[in-house]
Amino acid sequence: MPRTVDRPDRQFQIEEAVIDLAAESGFSAVTMRAVAGRISGSTTAITHYFDSRESLLRSAVRREMNRAREQIGLRNRDLDDPAALRAFVERTVLRPNERSDRFWLALVQGAGNENVLREELDGFNAWWDQQIRSRLIQLAPLQSMDSEVLADLLDVLVDGLIVAGFDDSAPWPNQRRQRLLNAVWRLLDI
Amino acid sequence: MPRTVDRPDRQFQIEEAVIDLAAESGFSAVTMRAVAGRISGSTTAITHYFDSRESLLRSAVRREMNRAREQIGLRNRDLDDPAALRAFVERTVLRPNERSDRFWLALVQGAGNENVLREELDGFNAWWDQQIRSRLIQLAPLQSMDSEVLADLLDVLVDGLIVAGFDDSAPWPNQRRQRLLNAVWRLLDI
Repeated sequence: MPRTVDRPDRQFQIEEAVIDLAAESGFSAVTMRAVAGRISGSTTAITHYFDSRESLLRSAVRREMNRAREQIGLRNRDLDDPAALRAFVERTVLRPNERSDRFWLALVQGAGNENVLREELDGFNAWWDQQIRSRLIQLAPLQSMDSEVLADLLDVLVDGLIVAGFDDSAPWPNQRRQRLLNAVWRLLDI
Repeated sequence: MPRTVDRPDRQFQIEEAVIDLAAESGFSAVTMRAVAGRISGSTTAITHYFDSRESLLRSAVRREMNRAREQIGLRNRDLDDPAALRAFVERTVLRPNERSDRFWLALVQGAGNENVLREELDGFNAWWDQQIRSRLIQLAPLQSMDSEVLADLLDVLVDGLIVAGFDDSAPWPNQRRQRLLNAVWRLLDI
């Protein structure tokens, strides 16, 4: 009896292999052949679902970004504005695992070389910036800092916290990230 | 008459090709063959100077890091402690060109996969941390923030400023980086 593979499951498995490979070695390591090797299949198993490397990358990256959006964007209806901003930033950088940080780093680097990655990253960033800026509108009048500069500071903190784990020989535990964010919230009086 | 190539010049050219390739596409793209192609030579032209890819990477990366140390570590004898700290951080992130930022990103990513990169990056970081911490000793008693947390904040700002340029579709100009740093110096009263 031939082994049957459920289509969504197999497609999901292929896309996860893309994210795993990118997180481990960067997007230049994500070839059709490498992905096929990862899922113990042939490249035909991939072209059955994706007609090009580009469409494969787009689908895999978009799924991963949508997952991140869902995690980060959770509503906190009962929080006041400063608490909602803090929670939003903290959900972005207090990560469940190293893979998501590694994927982010690979995506930022890969976006310099591959348009499909640039487009997906820009889409995510537009959403993230909009989320931050809409929350800052309420807070900015209370701040001594210009709201553009404050938005830049939050951007830089988020990128920096993700990268600092790789820059150091060991990833920063969430506790260390939280300690830094707490100090920043105090400084900013947020 | 055979063309003679001055040894240090040729070695320098090979090492620059390594940094160029890494900055453009990451260290996984730095193969002996790719480096040879870049200098319009054969792989033998490289193995004449370097007996392995590892020794090639180590030499090229160390030279680039030493160059960065020289630029960042310039003495400012006439500055007071806060001004010296500000100047040190600013020399780290107000970069002369995009290539040095791209190289840094590639190094941080590559350090997860290749021991030789991890070792060179750790060496640089140990130096950078020591420079920052020795400058903070004088300042920390004046700060409301714990000096460990302050050192973490400076680390994260530096990494974040370098990455934010790639995260966004266009690199951040030095002016935008300086604007953020100025705001941080005011917040910290440094």
